[in-house]
Amino acid sequence: MKRIAVLTSGGDAPGMNAAVRAVVRKGIHSGLEVFGVYQGYQGLIAGNIKKLDVGSVGDIVQRGGTMLYSARCPEFKTEEGRQKGIENLKKHGIEGLVVVGGDGSYMGAVKLTEAGFPCIGIPGTIDNDIPGTDFTLGFDTALNTVIDAIDKIRDTATSHERTFIIEVMGRDAGDIALWSGLAGGAETILIPESKEDFQDVLDRLKSGLARGKKHSILVVAEGVATGDEVAHALQEEGIDNRVTVLGHIQRGGSPTAMDRVLGSRFGGHAVDLLLAGHGGRAVGIRKNEIVDYDIMEILKEKHEIDMNMYQLSKELSI
Amino acid sequence: MKRIAVLTSGGDAPGMNAAVRAVVRKGIHSGLEVFGVYQGYQGLIAGNIKKLDVGSVGDIVQRGGTMLYSARCPEFKTEEGRQKGIENLKKHGIEGLVVVGGDGSYMGAVKLTEAGFPCIGIPGTIDNDIPGTDFTLGFDTALNTVIDAIDKIRDTATSHERTFIIEVMGRDAGDIALWSGLAGGAETILIPESKEDFQDVLDRLKSGLARGKKHSILVVAEGVATGDEVAHALQEEGIDNRVTVLGHIQRGGSPTAMDRVLGSRFGGHAVDLLLAGHGGRAVGIRKNEIVDYDIMEILKEKHEIDMNMYQLSKELSI
Amino acid sequence: MKRIAVLTSGGDAPGMNAAVRAVVRKGIHSGLEVFGVYQGYQGLIAGNIKKLDVGSVGDIVQRGGTMLYSARCPEFKTEEGRQKGIENLKKHGIEGLVVVGGDGSYMGAVKLTEAGFPCIGIPGTIDNDIPGTDFTLGFDTALNTVIDAIDKIRDTATSHERTFIIEVMGRDAGDIALWSGLAGGAETILIPESKEDFQDVLDRLKSGLARGKKHSILVVAEGVATGDEVAHALQEEGIDNRVTVLGHIQRGGSPTAMDRVLGSRFGGHAVDLLLAGHGGRAVGIRKNEIVDYDIMEILKEKHEIDMNMYQLSKELSI
Amino acid sequence: MKRIAVLTSGGDAPGMNAAVRAVVRKGIHSGLEVFGVYQGYQGLIAGNIKKLDVGSVGDIVQRGGTMLYSARCPEFKTEEGRQKGIENLKKHGIEGLVVVGGDGSYMGAVKLTEAGFPCIGIPGTIDNDIPGTDFTLGFDTALNTVIDAIDKIRDTATSHERTFIIEVMGRDAGDIALWSGLAGGAETILIPESKEDFQDVLDRLKSGLARGKKHSILVVAEGVATGDEVAHALQEEGIDNRVTVLGHIQRGGSPTAMDRVLGSRFGGHAVDLLLAGHGGRAVGIRKNEIVDYDIMEILKEKHEIDMNMYQLSKELSI
Repeated sequence: MKRIAVLTSGGDAPGMNAAVRAVVRKGIHSGLEVFGVYQGYQGLIAGNIKKLDVGSVGDIVQRGGTMLYSARCPEFKTEEGRQKGIENLKKHGIEGLVVVGGDGSYMGAVKLTEAGFPCIGIPGTIDNDIPGTDFTLGFDTALNTVIDAIDKIRDTATSHERTFIIEVMGRDAGDIALWSGLAGGAETILIPESKEDFQDVLDRLKSGLARGKKHSILVVAEGVATGDEVAHALQEEGIDNRVTVLGHIQRGGSPTAMDRVLGSRFGGHAVDLLLAGHGGRAVGIRKNEIVDYDIMEILKEKHEIDMNMYQLSKELSI
Repeated sequence: MKRIAVLTSGGDAPGMNAAVRAVVRKGIHSGLEVFGVYQGYQGLIAGNIKKLDVGSVGDIVQRGGTMLYSARCPEFKTEEGRQKGIENLKKHGIEGLVVVGGDGSYMGAVKLTEAGFPCIGIPGTIDNDIPGTDFTLGFDTALNTVIDAIDKIRDTATSHERTFIIEVMGRDAGDIALWSGLAGGAETILIPESKEDFQDVLDRLKSGLARGKKHSILVVAEGVATGDEVAHALQEEGIDNRVTVLGHIQRGGSPTAMDRVLGSRFGGHAVDLLLAGHGGRAVGIRKNEIVDYDIMEILKEKHEIDMNMYQLSKELSI
Repeated sequence: MKRIAVLTSGGDAPGMNAAVRAVVRKGIHSGLEVFGVYQGYQGLIAGNIKKLDVGSVGDIVQRGGTMLYSARCPEFKTEEGRQKGIENLKKHGIEGLVVVGGDGSYMGAVKLTEAGFPCIGIPGTIDNDIPGTDFTLGFDTALNTVIDAIDKIRDTATSHERTFIIEVMGRDAGDIALWSGLAGGAETILIPESKEDFQDVLDRLKSGLARGKKHSILVVAEGVATGDEVAHALQEEGIDNRVTVLGHIQRGGSPTAMDRVLGSRFGGHAVDLLLAGHGGRAVGIRKNEIVDYDIMEILKEKHEIDMNMYQLSKELSI
Repeated sequence: MKRIAVLTSGGDAPGMNAAVRAVVRKGIHSGLEVFGVYQGYQGLIAGNIKKLDVGSVGDIVQRGGTMLYSARCPEFKTEEGRQKGIENLKKHGIEGLVVVGGDGSYMGAVKLTEAGFPCIGIPGTIDNDIPGTDFTLGFDTALNTVIDAIDKIRDTATSHERTFIIEVMGRDAGDIALWSGLAGGAETILIPESKEDFQDVLDRLKSGLARGKKHSILVVAEGVATGDEVAHALQEEGIDNRVTVLGHIQRGGSPTAMDRVLGSRFGGHAVDLLLAGHGGRAVGIRKNEIVDYDIMEILKEKHEIDMNMYQLSKELSI
């Protein structure tokens, strides 16, 4: 293998730039030429591919977003689209591709690998919802953005003795809600993985108010309900409240130390795999070690949330 | 004058604690005894008043919110409610009151002064909408919270080449939108003080897109429209976008250096005024000097936004 | 067991408050009464012990430092001192103690356990130098403080095209230097675990300068040399540079999400251990699971740095 | 005037990029062509000059440092050097130059203006030591960096009940020390403008310790003494302490809202001045208005610190 490429796809996540930098530098250090594909699979089809040198990834490890841009690309779901992509890669003599993104992006990597072009997936998404890894790239940064918001809202919640509802991202996974709620000292955390009776939540809030508890923070994962839905439900029960939808600020920002290190390690390992002739693998961190799996097998699994932590969060919010 | 009190009222604002600390310490340094009224005017009526010593305001200059809590109090709009408040103050031998809050809070201070109890107002609100001061306490911190959010959203806007709409606070004033939009490099800023034709905004966005401009940030003051309203209007014109409503995170957080200094200076000056026998005054910062005005005269004026800065923001977002 | 206590000892670390909160709340949730020992072992000898209720640990999960204070206590190294401490605990009917601190604090916990009083150690130090855990409480926050400083210094290093040396903490361990250097994109990282020939470092810097590389960041662990020593060594070789010693800012600050979660889990597990009748254990996180070990056995081991990451950091800083 | 240029010189300061962006965009908006001179006066002599378009200053308003780089340039102190610079400007048809920097940089602008080439100075330095402006560009950001450090150190100072000394920048001016000390709630602030008897400081610290005050923060401006000198002096008097030298982190970081707005307004006004045919002016903000002065007259004046604020800081640190 002499030439490899890297692209970022799907929702951007902090740490993607650290991963791109690692692929480029580790690749060059290993004697490869490394190319960047711009705008994800869309750019792959369009042939938006440029050679990256050591300096091109200087001063990016600390930046949010992705220097390679990202885009949605329905056309890549067609075989024709993918064939165009492979031709564009081959035109540059590229023999392996690293894809940084979520499960939708992984599917593209699987299809390319099946079509004979070896790909390696790096789990890049703030949602922590990719199987095969304990942590996805961007999750830690998103958590810190969320707890910063919770800390700020707590100032007002405490000063005004009010109930606040905070809606956080996570798609179908409750990880952002659970971790940030536990870290932020939220009184209530609603996650899709727990079919908690909403009546129980109401009862607890009411008995807290009856005991004289004056303010309360409720974190709700977008996979459960919108913040507004929860707000209306509480309002109907006579519990005055304010709602905040954190939205896209959770996706941006300078990555944390953990995400920069994780991106660097993921990127380095992805290059090692390509050098060793492996395609169709997804890297991850499991039990605090960098690992890799068959990307097709991984997509059949399901990410599991840590229910012990959920239990702990309840015990600590008495 | 031997005893004074301080309360915070209305929406909390970063820097209120710095102002409270300054009132307490400057008061004690000047030989006074200083009392805190908890929960604003509601606590005044309820007699929730405690003596504060030097140590009671230690380690608070850096905290958001208000250690004295705040609350809404319809009862204080009645003469009866205010008489109860004055009685409670007199019960403790208190002869002067410092009120930190917005224009609603000022009205209470006016009424108390008219009833013979000297009050001093300190403009504490993130909205920068109080006449008689170039800057309100909390405005600078809110601005920095907003630009931090804009910077984060820009990461995603750039990576995905999309248009983002950010709704910010400010009530009827466009100051938060204007300053944060200029500081954040927003392409479009919508403020209530400028009757800009919305069609012009659309035309500019469209011609930008036609020229190949790939992402764009639009900051809209809540006094103009909700973020969702703007989003729908753009969507109808075929401009795909995402909307973020920053909400209550703008009110919290550790105050900036400017707000801590401003709160300290406001608090110190308020004590000086009471010591000099002045009631019914509002402090402020004008032309970079700490000033004070007749609080009743001030309430007749209107805060003015800086339209030169608005013009500049347009020139720089070409 | 009906009553337990918790103390913090040694250098303070962000997340200690989250651990204290978890011990108190999990304890109360499990039907125990929980006491706080103030000023570490010194307070234990002095009998500075107070009962903590659920509210006493409210609004602290986000605060740096330790609400229980910390202190050095040579007297606790004597048997007499420890007997006084045990008597004070027994006076309150306390039957188990959780100690949050570094290896010096662990030694006290061992001695108390040996004297018949069951203790559980929680590894609280920014240095990540405690065996039996992959991460110590406070390490993640310290890393983020360091990379924030590196990012700031990089602004100046880039603008002025200069070499900067940054000295970081870590005692005899290079973890802070290695992780922050990798995350910060440092060109050179000096750690005590690698007997790198200083001449090699000089040669690399010089050849970089000769190739036209205009700025460079070197992170040095305090266990290797002081920043000034490295600065002088470079200066003597004709390499102009500036040095920054980060010092105590590395110990403070609001804990990150990871440290708040880690402190919460450590605290919860420590209570579980006491409830199950286990004394003389140290909790930790290994392979991403909360674990516990015999505290005496653990102190015989040595924390190991991840040399693969060190190798990676070199490959990425080409 | 058809073509202008902009350069940054001296120590970098946050907000310089906002000023460069404003010069470029306001210039282009006014029909000018705008050039960037790289590496300050050194680049001017070397002819390192490039045309800047609207997009070249996109996405920089939030970045620390200066995209135009900075450098020291002894050669520019010679007439020969300056003549080379002017020739290089004229070679590109450039007729006016905006210089962002401190007083050393102003001197170059004066000399160029005297030699017939119109220059406008923008006060860019964190030290707030330039006459003719109430605030320099970068001062507000540096203050917030310093109070963030003070807040962190306070965590440890409180937890360990210790005295901490923090040395801050400012050259001969005490502004950073005074404002950050007041904002950070420091017990003692040492500034070069006040010939306070050091014995008084010691007496106050000692009487505080005698009264039971357990921790204390002392901020010292580099213009008074080094942190180490103060530390040794306290140590000799038996006051145990720790010292932190904040160093170059004070120069970097993403600029605050105030500095981004200030830089934008300064840059816009500088272009207005050149368009109006004025050379040899320095812009500033006085009494909250953007102003300009004869740059030669300004250099004869001296920046004045606000001694009322210094007095207030003493009254509040009782």
